[in-house]
Amino acid sequence: MRACIISTGDELLLGFSRNTTGPYLVQRLAALGIRVTALVTVGDKKEDLAAALRDAWSRHEVIIITGGLGPTADDITVETVAAELGLPLELDEASLVAIEQFFAHRGQPMPAANRKQAYLPRGARAIPNPIGTAPGALLEKDGRILFLFPGPPRELVPMFEQWGEPYLKEKLAAPGSVVKCRFLRVFGLGEAAIQERIADLFARQDVRIAFNATKEDIVLRLAAEGDREEKVEAALAEVEEEIRRRLGLHVFGSDDETLPGVVASLLQERGFTLALAESCTGGMIGRRITSVPGISRHFLYGFVTYSNEAKEKFLGVKKETLERYGAVSAETAAEMAAGARQAGGADCALAITGIAGPGGGTPEKPVGLVYIGLAVPEGVFVRRFLFAGDREGIRSLAASAALNMLRRYLIEGADSPAIGARMM
Amino acid sequence: MRACIISTGDELLLGFSRNTTGPYLVQRLAALGIRVTALVTVGDKKEDLAAALRDAWSRHEVIIITGGLGPTADDITVETVAAELGLPLELDEASLVAIEQFFAHRGQPMPAANRKQAYLPRGARAIPNPIGTAPGALLEKDGRILFLFPGPPRELVPMFEQWGEPYLKEKLAAPGSVVKCRFLRVFGLGEAAIQERIADLFARQDVRIAFNATKEDIVLRLAAEGDREEKVEAALAEVEEEIRRRLGLHVFGSDDETLPGVVASLLQERGFTLALAESCTGGMIGRRITSVPGISRHFLYGFVTYSNEAKEKFLGVKKETLERYGAVSAETAAEMAAGARQAGGADCALAITGIAGPGGGTPEKPVGLVYIGLAVPEGVFVRRFLFAGDREGIRSLAASAALNMLRRYLIEGADSPAIGARMM
Repeated sequence: MRACIISTGDELLLGFSRNTTGPYLVQRLAALGIRVTALVTVGDKKEDLAAALRDAWSRHEVIIITGGLGPTADDITVETVAAELGLPLELDEASLVAIEQFFAHRGQPMPAANRKQAYLPRGARAIPNPIGTAPGALLEKDGRILFLFPGPPRELVPMFEQWGEPYLKEKLAAPGSVVKCRFLRVFGLGEAAIQERIADLFARQDVRIAFNATKEDIVLRLAAEGDREEKVEAALAEVEEEIRRRLGLHVFGSDDETLPGVVASLLQERGFTLALAESCTGGMIGRRITSVPGISRHFLYGFVTYSNEAKEKFLGVKKETLERYGAVSAETAAEMAAGARQAGGADCALAITGIAGPGGGTPEKPVGLVYIGLAVPEGVFVRRFLFAGDREGIRSLAASAALNMLRRYLIEGADSPAIGARMM
Repeated sequence: MRACIISTGDELLLGFSRNTTGPYLVQRLAALGIRVTALVTVGDKKEDLAAALRDAWSRHEVIIITGGLGPTADDITVETVAAELGLPLELDEASLVAIEQFFAHRGQPMPAANRKQAYLPRGARAIPNPIGTAPGALLEKDGRILFLFPGPPRELVPMFEQWGEPYLKEKLAAPGSVVKCRFLRVFGLGEAAIQERIADLFARQDVRIAFNATKEDIVLRLAAEGDREEKVEAALAEVEEEIRRRLGLHVFGSDDETLPGVVASLLQERGFTLALAESCTGGMIGRRITSVPGISRHFLYGFVTYSNEAKEKFLGVKKETLERYGAVSAETAAEMAAGARQAGGADCALAITGIAGPGGGTPEKPVGLVYIGLAVPEGVFVRRFLFAGDREGIRSLAASAALNMLRRYLIEGADSPAIGARMM
């Protein structure tokens, strides 16, 4: 079975609201073995919704339209669907009673405009709305199943789970195809390098692998499809294990784990505290690590030492080091890390100094050059990076690389090949 | 002219990444007078993209496909488009050279997989990618204009603005309708409050006003359309002036100005230097202010004092203050700001302390409570805020509010009504 989801609303089309129910339905349908081939967003214009419905109708067995079921003039879904499918609108008495009760319960008279919400295309069944006034609807016609749901997630989700999902499950009972997904998160290897290592796995028919590179990491998505749940899960587990074997510690997490979250868990496991000294990233690592709730037990303090004077004054970087090697150098990164660690007695400290651009690069020290220092009880380690991208991209990669160095140290200790050379 | 945007990628379909470029393109095309009738999201399956392209082709003059231009096996856009339109793929020599140079610049050999990115459907023109390896493409066929752009916003946005927009403007030039846009950026007033002050302006036919609230600010988009450029510009200027008169200093900038950018310019004008002390924002203000190139002359240093010990040790916050009033209090914010200013001799210092949640709230000090301190030569000022939203939303608003307090001080001095009460 294939499905199309049509989300309506100017605010979604213009990006003023995030479309969360569309992807939610994609995932729930996938879990039922129904593949969503397109998620279509249209504004509050009848002709656009009608055209989208026409396209969807031509090649999908399941069509779900969300939004546009309210009482106002720009709520056009029901009348557009009725006109497009050539069905008259008819009053649904039970829905009218439910809407009247909704207002009676609040001690208010029902506004005249709300009466419109009780009309459905002929042949449609109303789906009760446990929260708002807009009933949903279910219509079977020409071998298609059409659902109408209200837009707000807190109305749509219970309505889909209580009425939509069981209905579809029953319809599907015979063929029974199962889809499962798994996300693996990678840092420290580029897309091409990952692909080289796992190229042969792309040939598998039962598990599809896809990439998504963000500014913070690379995500591998594994999707398995088959007729039996155990078989699908076994195939997924087999491919995951193989990828983890080949990419090793470059895989830092799965599903919705994040690099700061993983680092926070490792700090907690080891009972270590952390300090930061940031130059070119200007507070980015601090912002990321403090996005983890409860991190305050492990992240103690940070310095943003943008000027050379601040590097000397707060971190004890030597004036001679800055003069001889420059602010962007392995030597400065090492002294920054050591100074940050000592300043308040943290167990570990990360330091970043680099050239994020767009200006400031030279042939010897080009834009993208970043040194990351890691001070730990065993010593101070520094690693050199050359990142590509614009100012924000370079800064973001540098922040991720710093967190990743700390992660590798927390897992492998001071012998980790990922933490660079010992400087102090 | 009508347009359809097709966003590709399993991660968008599944809601794993937010689709920001789709709505961005909807807005930019609207500003040109091109109506987007549908924003279609499809996964990384050739047959789904082909079907979406077929539907789009049947009733749109402009079609934009984003994503799927990378080097890996799941990047299927170019070959799918070529097959669907019946065009052979041909090597674009200039793109190949650009990709080779991309790697040569980084001292790396070009992986074999990247060669595929230099192939385009016959008749297509390559659009250079200033950031990544994937060129975009522009193809005119059967009265349609088809654009292919890479998915990442930092690549798509400059490519659309430098190549796509001027091209479409020229195409639209003939019929003699002029569309001009202006963005006004606001902080310190909610959407409802703004709407109340300018409600009557929404009735104008010649200039349309739209809102877009982000986590960092609110953007008012003014779009004027007409047959003569001077007339359109005059209408736009008139409405802009009226809005600025009514919203006053709450309007902090226009078009692509940012709050950190405006603050950086004001610091430069006044010749002032800045220090930061961040608690709940964890480095967010630092990250934002250092996104402005060349800020190092004015932003000297920052502290991320997440623990109470760090607040005492680095900022000189008194133990009694922390014990008596708590870490989230006007008193602590004032001492943090004063301490940050003194620590390294900056002219101004901003300090933030608050409860970003999700835990840690109490009836007296709920989640969202934030105190912002501003230390300047005239004294130390503190303002109390109560922000709504999730952890990241609260942190982001707090960082914007702090920058805005500094902005108001730099414009109005210590008498500004926006900088709160004098504490020291």
